Formats: sequence, structure tokens, C-alpha cells
Amino acid sequence: MKARILIRPKQGILDPQGQTVERALPALGFSGISEVSVGRLVELEVDDPAQLEDLCERLLANPLIEDFEIQLPEG
Amino acid sequence: MKARILIRPKQGILDPQGQTVERALPALGFSGISEVSVGRLVELEVDDPAQLEDLCERLLANPLIEDFEIQLPEG
Repeated sequence: MKARILIRPKQGILDPQGQTVERALPALGFSGISEVSVGRLVELEVDDPAQLEDLCERLLANPLIEDFEIQLPEG
Repeated sequence: MKARILIRPKQGILDPQGQTVERALPALGFSGISEVSVGRLVELEVDDPAQLEDLCERLLANPLIEDFEIQLPEG
């Protein structure tokens, strides 16, 4: 099945990419945008989704500074 | 409102991060995982979501090599 994993910087951890985007907004004419966070999106095909938690902790995310969320197709 | 933007490498465009993950899997004991794609996840607070398409094209994504999908809260 197709799985999607959302990886985000933990609350309170420096997010330099998000800060860079926020700083660039006014010069490009955007306003009313805040709390920008930049993380990673991993999509993959997996036979046994029970592996995914372990995969995230050991390879995809850095649990010290990142949170992850596993999304599987519903039903 | 809170918006989420999923940015993916376009089909057929080289995805070196995805390839690196795939190559690392067997050594870590994972099997049955394929078609790994690594993109970016941007989350932000926006007053006027009509700005988001333009924001993606001009700042967040590189339209030559990336596709983006904007997700807004339902309702």
C-alpha cells in the first residue's frame, strides 16, 4: 500500500528553512502569512506498514529534533 | 487558517534522497518497501489562502522539477 510520512521540526527546535521563508515573504509582496514550518514529505509503497514506525525512527527522521506522522490509506 | 503544502519531485525527475533511502533499506533489515519519494512539507498560518498558489510557484517550489499540492482545512 501507499504510505505518506510527514516529518516536522519539533516545537521549539530551530527551523531555519521556515525562518528563511518567513523573511522572504514581504519582499515578494505576501502578507498575512506566519508560523511557517518546513519539514519533509516521504511517500513510499510498503507491503507491511507495521515496519514504518521503526523505519521513521531509524532512517527517515531524527527523533531528537523531528516529529513524524504516518498516514495510511483509509479503510 | 492553517494550510499544508506538499511538494514532490515531478515524475521522471531524479530524486536522489529517495534513491538513497531505498538503497539503505536492505542493510537496515527492511524489505517490501519501494517507490520511495522524498519531498518537502510546508505548514503555515495564512489569512488569505488565495495567495498560496502564487507563493508556491514563486518561493516554495521549483515548478521546473517539483509539483505541489495545497491542503486547506475542510469545510
